[in-house]
Amino acid sequence: MNIRIGIYGYGNLGRGIESAIRQNPDMTLAAVFTRRDPSTLKIATEGVPVVSAADVLSYKDKIDVMILCGGSATDLPIQTPELAKHFTVVDSFDTHAKIPVHFANVDAAAKEGGNIAVISAGWDPGAFSLNRLYAGAFLPDGADYTFWGKGVSQGHSDAIRRIAGVVDAKQYTIPVDSALEAVRSGSEPTLTTREKHTRECFVVAEEGADLARIEREIKEMPNYFADYDTTVHFISLEELRRDHSGIPHGGFVIRSGKTGLNRENSHVIEYSLKLDSNPEFTASVIAAYARAAHRMHTEGACGCKTVFDVAPAYLSPKSYDELIATLL
Amino acid sequence: MNIRIGIYGYGNLGRGIESAIRQNPDMTLAAVFTRRDPSTLKIATEGVPVVSAADVLSYKDKIDVMILCGGSATDLPIQTPELAKHFTVVDSFDTHAKIPVHFANVDAAAKEGGNIAVISAGWDPGAFSLNRLYAGAFLPDGADYTFWGKGVSQGHSDAIRRIAGVVDAKQYTIPVDSALEAVRSGSEPTLTTREKHTRECFVVAEEGADLARIEREIKEMPNYFADYDTTVHFISLEELRRDHSGIPHGGFVIRSGKTGLNRENSHVIEYSLKLDSNPEFTASVIAAYARAAHRMHTEGACGCKTVFDVAPAYLSPKSYDELIATLL
Repeated sequence: MNIRIGIYGYGNLGRGIESAIRQNPDMTLAAVFTRRDPSTLKIATEGVPVVSAADVLSYKDKIDVMILCGGSATDLPIQTPELAKHFTVVDSFDTHAKIPVHFANVDAAAKEGGNIAVISAGWDPGAFSLNRLYAGAFLPDGADYTFWGKGVSQGHSDAIRRIAGVVDAKQYTIPVDSALEAVRSGSEPTLTTREKHTRECFVVAEEGADLARIEREIKEMPNYFADYDTTVHFISLEELRRDHSGIPHGGFVIRSGKTGLNRENSHVIEYSLKLDSNPEFTASVIAAYARAAHRMHTEGACGCKTVFDVAPAYLSPKSYDELIATLL
Repeated sequence: MNIRIGIYGYGNLGRGIESAIRQNPDMTLAAVFTRRDPSTLKIATEGVPVVSAADVLSYKDKIDVMILCGGSATDLPIQTPELAKHFTVVDSFDTHAKIPVHFANVDAAAKEGGNIAVISAGWDPGAFSLNRLYAGAFLPDGADYTFWGKGVSQGHSDAIRRIAGVVDAKQYTIPVDSALEAVRSGSEPTLTTREKHTRECFVVAEEGADLARIEREIKEMPNYFADYDTTVHFISLEELRRDHSGIPHGGFVIRSGKTGLNRENSHVIEYSLKLDSNPEFTASVIAAYARAAHRMHTEGACGCKTVFDVAPAYLSPKSYDELIATLL
């Protein structure tokens, strides 16, 4: 029987999950839950109920895995523990600094309900985390580097939009090529924030706005831009829509290290992602972890899990015999 | 207490394990086992016994994990099942086509002894296999590509050495740049063997040997060279020793795939290794799986395992709290 998936929250990520389910023949979309009026929500899949979030518990026996598609700032810290009491859940909680607290809250709730809860699935945290762990275990004497981009940072784009006189904006995070090359050389360089990434902003300003003032406010914004070399381009709304409507992202996890009795040999492990759609790829990773969560729960496991706890074989729809015959 | 490691077979890989143990403070080298006369073997670590392979069972209570460093052709098919009856073991069995049979033999032996046996740890099989599995699970609608090199192929070097008139030889497998670029573009090209890799041979011939005949025999050798564009360079023994004494290797696992309701978005996942020393990196991966095997055995698991069965957290010496706080 197929794994029955519930989508809780229908934004970019929720739509990505809906699309990912179609690429996984062992999964079926069972229902979409929304805090909006369900009658106002049109989803892409025919015949699947759109249900008020308030009625989610009535679906307890109709959902194998609930995928939480809310935001990390305010939604998931509440929703994941709450729903983990009643469902096997997967979220993509991505506030790195708050993961230990989120883990503890979700773990208690999931154990109370006898459920599995996989948190922080996606690509960072997620696929990138896996590669940091594997590379560190494979090369204990070395150094780790994570670069992001080229890609759209939603947080930085939002920060620009809050400046007076700005109509809309898109911000790209761009890794610095020379820094990437230095890391790949195995020299284990020490790199400042400014040396690793640049920021490029495409901004639509109100007519008559003081462009110099907007540019200055962007470049001097603490935390977001002040520590980076930032470029600002003013463009028309039409250009923004035409050239910058996508949500690409990606990045690099690189570890270099030494082996040998005298550290005489260097090695470089590099993992990279080049993604046309950040939310769709994140959703696709989450779908694989939904499969794993369901299997682990079926085997009797419970509690909060991360990508570090999930044996790779659980992620694949292939049988174990097929995996060792074709992929090992 | 540290994990007590036994090394069974002291060639390039065994020496790599000895060196890797020094980079893992939770491991101690307990003994080296050899089929040679132990008195003739000088190892790099002071105070560690070198023991005849015939006496291995007397070390049953002194070894937590036995690492098998023999060859896949004739040693491991016998040794891994035999020793898995008595020890937790790790091997790097790398004859891909024979893994299912090896798995079955080792699984029966390990279960008989109540031990864990991790087979086929290393980088291919091993780290590359993991990346093929993860990438396939994360992008179900896509295509996989594995490229090897630039690196020394021991098997191909040996094949050249068997030709009459050849004193010594080194063969490099080299991925074709244009093929790598085509794969990275996301176009999912169909590539022939010849389009993916070239082979470059450095050959020392006997004085007066017929070089044209040797070159022809190399280039026409079925399976090894006939399907590739092969370059042959005749050099002196001195040049071979000076310029080609290393054992570098590496390669690329790339998967590209589509997401979206209409497959409108492309994604590329790329994993690559650039290794100065193939056996030392392989050994370093094996050491991490020795830690995992010991932990899984301590938890009561038994039977044959592969990299697909090992949850990533088992590989790292860090505590789980530290992992989720620093690497997730």
